[in-house]
Amino acid sequence: MTRSLLQVTRALAAGEVDAATLTEQALSAIGDTQGEGQLTFTRLYAQEARAAAAQADKRRLEQRPRSPLDGVPISIKDLFDVAGEPTTAGSRVLCHATAASKDAAVVARLRQAGAVIVGKTNMTEFAYSGLGVNPHYGTPANAFDRAQRRIPGGSSSGAAVSVSDGMCFGAVGTDTGGSVRIPAALSGLTGYKPTARRIDRAGVLPLSPALDAVGVIAHDVRSCLLLDSVIADTPLLTQEKSLRHARFALPQSVVLEGLDAGVETAWHAALDTLRQAGATLEWLPMEEFNEVAGFNAGGGFTALESWQWHRTLIEQNAAQYDQRVLSRIRRGAELTANDRQLLERQRADWQCRVAQRLNGYDAMLMPTVPVIAPTIAELEADEAHYFALNGAMLRNPSLINFLDGCAVSLPCHTAGQAPVGLMLAGLPLHDNAVMSWALCIEHALAHSHTTGDTP
Amino acid sequence: MTRSLLQVTRALAAGEVDAATLTEQALSAIGDTQGEGQLTFTRLYAQEARAAAAQADKRRLEQRPRSPLDGVPISIKDLFDVAGEPTTAGSRVLCHATAASKDAAVVARLRQAGAVIVGKTNMTEFAYSGLGVNPHYGTPANAFDRAQRRIPGGSSSGAAVSVSDGMCFGAVGTDTGGSVRIPAALSGLTGYKPTARRIDRAGVLPLSPALDAVGVIAHDVRSCLLLDSVIADTPLLTQEKSLRHARFALPQSVVLEGLDAGVETAWHAALDTLRQAGATLEWLPMEEFNEVAGFNAGGGFTALESWQWHRTLIEQNAAQYDQRVLSRIRRGAELTANDRQLLERQRADWQCRVAQRLNGYDAMLMPTVPVIAPTIAELEADEAHYFALNGAMLRNPSLINFLDGCAVSLPCHTAGQAPVGLMLAGLPLHDNAVMSWALCIEHALAHSHTTGDTP
Repeated sequence: MTRSLLQVTRALAAGEVDAATLTEQALSAIGDTQGEGQLTFTRLYAQEARAAAAQADKRRLEQRPRSPLDGVPISIKDLFDVAGEPTTAGSRVLCHATAASKDAAVVARLRQAGAVIVGKTNMTEFAYSGLGVNPHYGTPANAFDRAQRRIPGGSSSGAAVSVSDGMCFGAVGTDTGGSVRIPAALSGLTGYKPTARRIDRAGVLPLSPALDAVGVIAHDVRSCLLLDSVIADTPLLTQEKSLRHARFALPQSVVLEGLDAGVETAWHAALDTLRQAGATLEWLPMEEFNEVAGFNAGGGFTALESWQWHRTLIEQNAAQYDQRVLSRIRRGAELTANDRQLLERQRADWQCRVAQRLNGYDAMLMPTVPVIAPTIAELEADEAHYFALNGAMLRNPSLINFLDGCAVSLPCHTAGQAPVGLMLAGLPLHDNAVMSWALCIEHALAHSHTTGDTP
Repeated sequence: MTRSLLQVTRALAAGEVDAATLTEQALSAIGDTQGEGQLTFTRLYAQEARAAAAQADKRRLEQRPRSPLDGVPISIKDLFDVAGEPTTAGSRVLCHATAASKDAAVVARLRQAGAVIVGKTNMTEFAYSGLGVNPHYGTPANAFDRAQRRIPGGSSSGAAVSVSDGMCFGAVGTDTGGSVRIPAALSGLTGYKPTARRIDRAGVLPLSPALDAVGVIAHDVRSCLLLDSVIADTPLLTQEKSLRHARFALPQSVVLEGLDAGVETAWHAALDTLRQAGATLEWLPMEEFNEVAGFNAGGGFTALESWQWHRTLIEQNAAQYDQRVLSRIRRGAELTANDRQLLERQRADWQCRVAQRLNGYDAMLMPTVPVIAPTIAELEADEAHYFALNGAMLRNPSLINFLDGCAVSLPCHTAGQAPVGLMLAGLPLHDNAVMSWALCIEHALAHSHTTGDTP
């Protein structure tokens, strides 16, 4: 296992390592011709990273680091504006777009904190799928069972591989329907999607402003909290809690359908571990979750809002799009202002009903995704399989975007087995509580002796 | 004291009274030339109300009432669309506006439930003040100390008087910065501002869509819940709770400034009562609350959004506006798209920080408004006094609109004294918990032998 972001910040603070070394290691992992670097990044900042690392080391020597992350290699998804270059979002069609005039708010914050931005990570084109397959730049393979070349999950595919393969220590991505949590789950990492309003989205190429959130992927909860603390206006304050006082809801209905053997086993083992640690777990019918597919039958906010953004570009350059993404965006052309109004009303009412069900619970638990990572080849070969699996991957995480809630995916598989994610989720603005409980759950899973390490 | 909506629904269900009688009593209270009816309503539906009552009685006889509210006289604020008539929002300038083509969603729901809509209630013009003074239609006097003709509070001024004076049993209003809770507090009634998204705002003349919520005024919490249950898509489900398990935050800072003797006494007595009932009350510095005045120094969302709505109308008819309201709307002319973007970012971050402070608390408590009701005459006479008092009235309630939260104002004064409101408030979508705790607090206050009845 590569070191976690938390470990690295401690090592830097203790003077056991310097930013230049960490950066060289990261660039060397990226450059390894036997590795996935080429497929993981769409753009590299080797020279800038080395310069940033040198400055960070200088600040450390002078005992004035800008943040705990000063000098830590970090990756950003290919949809954050970096001043002076076009933002391509995993597409070809935007390669010659107008250059961004300034850094995205998140990028500016990373620089302010002294983070070493090593490059922009590959992604599903325009973030519009949960699988991470990209026909233009290729698809990096999951660190698990690499010989089989399984998907890392998406849309923040490169983000996950950049962390699992030691090309950086934390990745900043976005999550509109699971794009941070799905790759975290499939890759044995931790992925945190905050309540959307926590992080400034200025300078982020949008997929669906109604649902988009900036999120992070790292090895563990504390590493996610550290990275979050530099990109959010205000860091979270977690509280020490005991699972003996936890009361978690376990929604039934659609979120438990179609679990494969790997997920089924890891999910029940995780629940057993939490019960043994004293947590109260209660099954809830939560039939509300079955309604959302109906609300989104026409494509939902994502089709509506992406069509508005892409419309003109598609009229001029449809052939340059990933055709699978294009067909999903085009569903928005059929949707009217009335459809949007209805969807907003349905969403508001649904949020109220879900909040009602969760009254009295600390958070809810479910498998992040129902299946382990499939191979890239099977998805590239079969369009129907691609769309079916994409729907399966997005199903559970996207409920939390629709809720405007917050969620974290924690690895919960047995070491050596295929990675499986356990999702802890809560209502809007419950991030402090959810992440506090995530620390407890992570601790319990780590001490159950059945839970996997990162691959 | 007039009967509460809860009592009336029980009496109707038991056959002890019929809708026709209740409606005649309401119309007679409105028509009483010694009373405030003329100033309380901008429009009466006497004939329609009698017809609706007759139909409700017929349904009761046939044992098929449409809801517990079938046959109950209810008032609606003068900004809900009623098909076939212009929606005037307490203004003169809209008297000849295009008639609404259909009922507001809330009005349609009231009719569907069999409620007898007796009329539209007077209000601050366009809802843009917390005092309730209206130069066009006059200002109804508070039921307390009527000889002095004190304000009922606003903007839902007529709504409060319609309930306190037995002209109906529940009032539907709106609350952008306290317009339901302020009149409830000043009039010894209960006012509930739900999380905005709980109630469909279709057909409601907007003040500020970023902050507007539809809310209710009635005699007690259960009456508010009953009325809410027919206007919301989904009724709340309150849970039985004990104050011995309550942990409430008591924010300090700006919300406790400038309390007059009446409010100071009632506030501390209420806290004593809650402590004696076993509640844990903890003072919190909550300096975040001091920031909001700065965010809104240019007029905030309300000025921005009302200027957009009114701009053309003002260009043509400025002289017909309440000049005090006009001057507040016009502040929006100075605000730009950049100001809005900044305000949205500041709001999002502020909400996250307040949520952080409230982590681990069940809800927060504060005085709804810092002072008891002043006289109408002193406000009409002195513009500076009007604006200062308006700011004081809106100060605490508007924090909860800025939070997108939910809140209820409960009467907490000693019987015979000037009414004082105790505000219980929580985060977005916490309505079930807040209203469950409100039931406990109401019970404790009622049994403390120091708490006032409605006047």
